[in-house]
Amino acid sequence: MSAPSSSVAPPAERILVGVAGCTGVVGQRFLSMLAEHPWFRLAAISASDKSAGKRYDEAAAWKLTTDLPADIAAMAVLPNTVESFLAAKCVVVFSALDTGVATQFELDLAAAGIKVFSNASSHRMDARVPILIPHANAEHIAILPAQQRAMGYEEKGGYIVTNANCSSTGLVVALRPLQDAFGIDSLFVTTLQAISGAGYPGVPSLDITDNTIPYISGEEDKMEMEPQKILGRVGKVEGEKEERFIPAGFKVSAQCNRVHVIDGHQECVSIKLKQKATLEQVQACLRDWQSEAQLLRLPSAPVHPIHLHTAANRPQPRLDRDRERGFVVTVGRVRECPLFDWKFTLCSHNTVLGAAGGSILNAELAYAKGYITQTKK
Amino acid sequence: MSAPSSSVAPPAERILVGVAGCTGVVGQRFLSMLAEHPWFRLAAISASDKSAGKRYDEAAAWKLTTDLPADIAAMAVLPNTVESFLAAKCVVVFSALDTGVATQFELDLAAAGIKVFSNASSHRMDARVPILIPHANAEHIAILPAQQRAMGYEEKGGYIVTNANCSSTGLVVALRPLQDAFGIDSLFVTTLQAISGAGYPGVPSLDITDNTIPYISGEEDKMEMEPQKILGRVGKVEGEKEERFIPAGFKVSAQCNRVHVIDGHQECVSIKLKQKATLEQVQACLRDWQSEAQLLRLPSAPVHPIHLHTAANRPQPRLDRDRERGFVVTVGRVRECPLFDWKFTLCSHNTVLGAAGGSILNAELAYAKGYITQTKK
Amino acid sequence: MSAPSSSVAPPAERILVGVAGCTGVVGQRFLSMLAEHPWFRLAAISASDKSAGKRYDEAAAWKLTTDLPADIAAMAVLPNTVESFLAAKCVVVFSALDTGVATQFELDLAAAGIKVFSNASSHRMDARVPILIPHANAEHIAILPAQQRAMGYEEKGGYIVTNANCSSTGLVVALRPLQDAFGIDSLFVTTLQAISGAGYPGVPSLDITDNTIPYISGEEDKMEMEPQKILGRVGKVEGEKEERFIPAGFKVSAQCNRVHVIDGHQECVSIKLKQKATLEQVQACLRDWQSEAQLLRLPSAPVHPIHLHTAANRPQPRLDRDRERGFVVTVGRVRECPLFDWKFTLCSHNTVLGAAGGSILNAELAYAKGYITQTKK
Amino acid sequence: MSAPSSSVAPPAERILVGVAGCTGVVGQRFLSMLAEHPWFRLAAISASDKSAGKRYDEAAAWKLTTDLPADIAAMAVLPNTVESFLAAKCVVVFSALDTGVATQFELDLAAAGIKVFSNASSHRMDARVPILIPHANAEHIAILPAQQRAMGYEEKGGYIVTNANCSSTGLVVALRPLQDAFGIDSLFVTTLQAISGAGYPGVPSLDITDNTIPYISGEEDKMEMEPQKILGRVGKVEGEKEERFIPAGFKVSAQCNRVHVIDGHQECVSIKLKQKATLEQVQACLRDWQSEAQLLRLPSAPVHPIHLHTAANRPQPRLDRDRERGFVVTVGRVRECPLFDWKFTLCSHNTVLGAAGGSILNAELAYAKGYITQTKK
Repeated sequence: MSAPSSSVAPPAERILVGVAGCTGVVGQRFLSMLAEHPWFRLAAISASDKSAGKRYDEAAAWKLTTDLPADIAAMAVLPNTVESFLAAKCVVVFSALDTGVATQFELDLAAAGIKVFSNASSHRMDARVPILIPHANAEHIAILPAQQRAMGYEEKGGYIVTNANCSSTGLVVALRPLQDAFGIDSLFVTTLQAISGAGYPGVPSLDITDNTIPYISGEEDKMEMEPQKILGRVGKVEGEKEERFIPAGFKVSAQCNRVHVIDGHQECVSIKLKQKATLEQVQACLRDWQSEAQLLRLPSAPVHPIHLHTAANRPQPRLDRDRERGFVVTVGRVRECPLFDWKFTLCSHNTVLGAAGGSILNAELAYAKGYITQTKK
Repeated sequence: MSAPSSSVAPPAERILVGVAGCTGVVGQRFLSMLAEHPWFRLAAISASDKSAGKRYDEAAAWKLTTDLPADIAAMAVLPNTVESFLAAKCVVVFSALDTGVATQFELDLAAAGIKVFSNASSHRMDARVPILIPHANAEHIAILPAQQRAMGYEEKGGYIVTNANCSSTGLVVALRPLQDAFGIDSLFVTTLQAISGAGYPGVPSLDITDNTIPYISGEEDKMEMEPQKILGRVGKVEGEKEERFIPAGFKVSAQCNRVHVIDGHQECVSIKLKQKATLEQVQACLRDWQSEAQLLRLPSAPVHPIHLHTAANRPQPRLDRDRERGFVVTVGRVRECPLFDWKFTLCSHNTVLGAAGGSILNAELAYAKGYITQTKK
Repeated sequence: MSAPSSSVAPPAERILVGVAGCTGVVGQRFLSMLAEHPWFRLAAISASDKSAGKRYDEAAAWKLTTDLPADIAAMAVLPNTVESFLAAKCVVVFSALDTGVATQFELDLAAAGIKVFSNASSHRMDARVPILIPHANAEHIAILPAQQRAMGYEEKGGYIVTNANCSSTGLVVALRPLQDAFGIDSLFVTTLQAISGAGYPGVPSLDITDNTIPYISGEEDKMEMEPQKILGRVGKVEGEKEERFIPAGFKVSAQCNRVHVIDGHQECVSIKLKQKATLEQVQACLRDWQSEAQLLRLPSAPVHPIHLHTAANRPQPRLDRDRERGFVVTVGRVRECPLFDWKFTLCSHNTVLGAAGGSILNAELAYAKGYITQTKK
Repeated sequence: MSAPSSSVAPPAERILVGVAGCTGVVGQRFLSMLAEHPWFRLAAISASDKSAGKRYDEAAAWKLTTDLPADIAAMAVLPNTVESFLAAKCVVVFSALDTGVATQFELDLAAAGIKVFSNASSHRMDARVPILIPHANAEHIAILPAQQRAMGYEEKGGYIVTNANCSSTGLVVALRPLQDAFGIDSLFVTTLQAISGAGYPGVPSLDITDNTIPYISGEEDKMEMEPQKILGRVGKVEGEKEERFIPAGFKVSAQCNRVHVIDGHQECVSIKLKQKATLEQVQACLRDWQSEAQLLRLPSAPVHPIHLHTAANRPQPRLDRDRERGFVVTVGRVRECPLFDWKFTLCSHNTVLGAAGGSILNAELAYAKGYITQTKK
């Protein structure tokens, strides 16, 4: 973590956090990033019954190219229960659980007073659960008190924050400055997604070698819905007591493909804006975008959320995914579109910004904005 | 060549043909397909000065997974001159030349009375040179007399026929039945193109391993222009004596990517039609399409030009590119589009149907329609 | 099947055969090769309970690049029981079962009178079960009467024939002519093995992309033991009534690696011979080898069992695996070794010659030698 | 560079160094590693006439996954002349030149008083040029005065130090402790080498995708000769005035393959030792090895030169190549060999330890041992 030092006062003692679903590809990223986090201290890790009870290095097949930290290797894997994290006094739990398990377990954690930052899709479309991407919609965190009231989490102080689908993440970071500056009417997006997005063991090598797969279950629906919520606003709906998210009005058509890349999703976008703009204006708007993550200098935040590349053949996943530790969206090939207004290509790291890293950035934002305190509420 | 036997009477003696640019990836495909062709006999092969004068197996690094036929291995590589082919009494020359060399050389060949079937892009956009794809626009061959008159080729009987860019080819085969049935208003297409499209040595392995490249020089322009000509009509323009091609009126926006696949281009299409249609109508229209190549049972023609796949995760290049020896376009994932009318994905073999095989099919059509006779005009 | 026509009289009616374990990668190869076999007719297919009861195309994810034949697609998958094959009057069953299932089931099939040709390793090291590779040790088939007597299979006429591990197969084909001509003292072999050898889903893409894996469970043991049996002799051991296999006396040291290749195992060999030889003698001995499979012109037999390649950079899996439909071992880079006598590299198709194709060739040999008759014994 | 701080006093001012052959894959590694080196300051870079005169970022296609440092991007590329480096007052020049260019140019540089640390093979086998690998034979640096006397470099103070072939490097690091402890009699080694070893553009993707290549020009000869010199001794030969290298007496048989891996060479070794040893002794000997690079805590030196892995399926290039910034050799699968004494597998980073990093480590050793002073001799 060589990011610039934060403008926010660090906690007097590091906040105790847990990781639920610690053995998979995203779980491993969480552990790796939390191993030396300046604000958070890893206190408990959980997994399914197959792994619970083992040492971590016996339970998990470590797949990252950096070594498994020795102290994490020796941690005991706990079962996926609320008690696992309460006993360890975890204030925050990061969830890398499969959707099936996550749905009820995350509700139980929140009800028990734990602040849940989840990579699972289970609660993303809930009316008062933010899909939070500090590069794109940091202000959505303000929904949390309404969520707590609506769900009865107030007293114990728990809540659920999700991050977006890994493909939606890269897209909305590029869309946000365009929406602010020119308004978005509609867009087409075709993705070339990395194999790590399918987890481990995930995509069989016999399926993807010398091949592409034009289908990822559920992915196109997520990409057509999530951006509307992420770039939508908080408002009241008649008959509801608490505020909820109101989708942005633009339309998205998505086609999602799996390609033979380890990490890094590439996306080809054609967009129609509400206001006319010049190429220079579009490029400047992307290049100069600063989100609250930058203003607060969160520990994991990059200097620029968007890197605008002007070389004709960029971005490329292998060359661009690790820029600023994987927390940046690289945008390139901004050019006119014969049908809509603009075409461009973007690339982002699907298991860093698009998964574990995004969740950690969300927790950093929550701490910076006062939504996490060292003792449970 | 296990295709069904043709309805056209074969030539009494096989027609003598040559291949210009015989050492590259497309040149090798030409040789491989002509080695046992029922109508054509390979009589001369040419290449650049570096290779001319050598035996073929010394001049070329054979890259196909089928063995180099022994009689071709022993052929002498001739220089890229008109005389090379005239001396060998070639009636037809297939051109796999690089654009730079092809531009003038193909004109010289045609002027000398040779029927040129070219894979080069040099003359594709010429007003009276057809971009011919028997699966899509067999009727365009009728321009040839006008071309001969306009170019002064009449007396000696030469002409130039081109095939399309490898990505345009797959696309227009799927578009033609839709245009006939419903009319095309506009479309977006994003490609995932195979490395063999860049020839040999082509794409360095360091560039494409664990990577995608969002740029192929000149490709998007070709894909936005060629389909208009291929699906356009023949007509008169004021002030011109001879008929010429008039582009179809629809609009195309293309984004082209290189992916880590050996052979087989995949394309994701979103299309707006002029008439409303049901899913069943669109699927039936694609599945049932028959072109003149089928009606004439040309030796290289597949039984169906389009294979409609209904599995959720198809087409895939590795599994679908070799269907019916690579002469088919596989279309799948036909579904509604939230913005336009329909989304679908297609896959075709870029060096068979999209290059050498397409040119040979063009020559078969030309013979079947009387544009090639055994003696030069 | 475009192999030369056999010198053996074909059966009056095609012999009914079954495939046990029909859904995996090797099972699919069996079905594909039996679909149009001149001597055998596919009458029953079985798989585990998960698949039994379904149509084949619903039970199996077809992974070959050739289309699933329509009549096989519609076949019912039967349970892995002896009754499944008896009811269908199968004389022969090809086994592509996992070792765990194969061990008892193959014994049961043989006891019920069925001739089992197995790709499983369960019975390979049994004293009277031949590891049969017609290119290498066709004479070992003569053990079958002794096996039948020892196992009580005589009356009903069943028996078990196995093929070798996919890596052993390529190796012993190259070793046999050397052993005959010069005698083998000892050898080192290092393999680069294809992912299809691990079946489907098999090797996760995250494990093998941009990587090699220096370990394949149990593989080195097999390669150090099987060649001794395959190139051993049939003989008597004191105290045993029936003849058994006596291992050849040479020593093998093997190192096995998984590499990112779809099909085709490559093996680097350093060998010490008992007699001195010249390079020309070694090359001629390999190139000129003819096995009984050639002499009998079995339907699946290649013209030459060994293709000796003299180019400096061959064999290569992608270019050489499909030579003569995958039934050939390609040997190249024969050169002196500073420590032993000779170094060479070989490549063979692991799921054709090294698995399903090898088993079918074994059954063809058995028919040609009178070990299969149209009615059960 | 997060290595532990050195025990050697750093230079008062950073020593001026140059890189010859700065645009290729190894040249880029040199620049990247020198960008923030504590002892050396990059003062001049040179390349062929095609690149000379341009800014670096215009001359080179940057292929590393870390960003090109901005100050290097702006450096002027100088021609490959001695004057380029003399004018910039370079004391040291790192050479990443092709062999053809390197042979004479490195002699010229040394004659002009420059200390040359070369990755080229041109002078590796010269009698008084050390092939230096601090992990393996740091003491060989003591040949330099003899080299200077023999070559007439004394007055101006130049000399040539080479590093080994990238495959030899990993091998000899593992061999050195075994030689010291038990003596080496002979060994077989089969390599699986990464594509980056061939430079850029290097291996065409059409050649290596779904493939392996059993041949790398000149590589087996290097691997059979270099280890003898690297692990040999310095001694006198009758009739020669100055000492020279005397090869170690063991024998090596090598087989070299290219595989589809970006970085990281894997090698499978079978070795016969002069003394018997237990598995524990062999493992301890490898694990505990410390070279002078460790004792001096050179800035680029890893904590342990050899990482002994005990997992059954390691080392793997993608997971192990970057351990300790690529300066470590990972050894695993140490086990008995049925023919020789021991089998093991090793992996090392071919463009870090095996190329640019190795050269920089050599220069660090030279500085630490007093062979580089801040002003030219």
